[in-house]
Amino acid sequence: MSASTAPATALSLPDATIDKIVAEMKFDTSGLVAAIAQQHDTGEVLMLAWMNEEAVRETLRSGYGHYYSRSRRKQWRKGESSGQVQKLVDFRIDCDGDAVLLLVEQTGVACHTGRHNCFFRAPRAGSLAEIAKVEVDPSKLYGA
Amino acid sequence: MSASTAPATALSLPDATIDKIVAEMKFDTSGLVAAIAQQHDTGEVLMLAWMNEEAVRETLRSGYGHYYSRSRRKQWRKGESSGQVQKLVDFRIDCDGDAVLLLVEQTGVACHTGRHNCFFRAPRAGSLAEIAKVEVDPSKLYGA
Repeated sequence: MSASTAPATALSLPDATIDKIVAEMKFDTSGLVAAIAQQHDTGEVLMLAWMNEEAVRETLRSGYGHYYSRSRRKQWRKGESSGQVQKLVDFRIDCDGDAVLLLVEQTGVACHTGRHNCFFRAPRAGSLAEIAKVEVDPSKLYGA
Repeated sequence: MSASTAPATALSLPDATIDKIVAEMKFDTSGLVAAIAQQHDTGEVLMLAWMNEEAVRETLRSGYGHYYSRSRRKQWRKGESSGQVQKLVDFRIDCDGDAVLLLVEQTGVACHTGRHNCFFRAPRAGSLAEIAKVEVDPSKLYGA
């Protein structure tokens, strides 16, 4: 987890390898696995999202993070609106096959609120405090 | 994420603070949120598990990781069988309130397979390889 000195190369796999990986995964009754995105060189946990099989395949094929939106019921490419893409550096499956860890190179901020990661609320002095600042105005990310 | 020099203190909160935290969380239709456990000083992602409201409350009250087993349909205290407890150092809620990040001090190994973390399978040379070794014989962890 030391800081990298050169740009990370995107992990892009052939379909035969992707087939072997998907065969080891256990999607839930909704067809999903939980997916953690972690900045590869700092260890920062950026976000938690969901993947269906096609999102897993497209991530491993393209080398860029794709997820499945439960609210919009569709696959999405991280950064497709905002440009804040996630280049895939490594991919891990857990012991049960129902959760994955994406080691990524995050462009810009990971959170739709404009913060660097989504886990910015923590208990402080008896309340829930925001412990990370907004780095990018969300209206600039999404053109709202 | 620098290495700590002193043992971490367990985060234990009063019920009034816990009430405020739970009020900001959005449990799914099964009453659960996804919970990531991360080693607080190294950044290692240890495991992904699930929490119901009572597991959140018991974690924040006791200062030790508690989860909800979807297969056994009951709350469990991490390490209750194996002794591999997780001392809570900090607790984060994500932007949507449906995922949490536990920063913990892991005793021993986090994975029931005896590996330090659960994300030990990764694509290597066209296949899925095990990239972490078994550190503790699982039969010694669980007395099987």
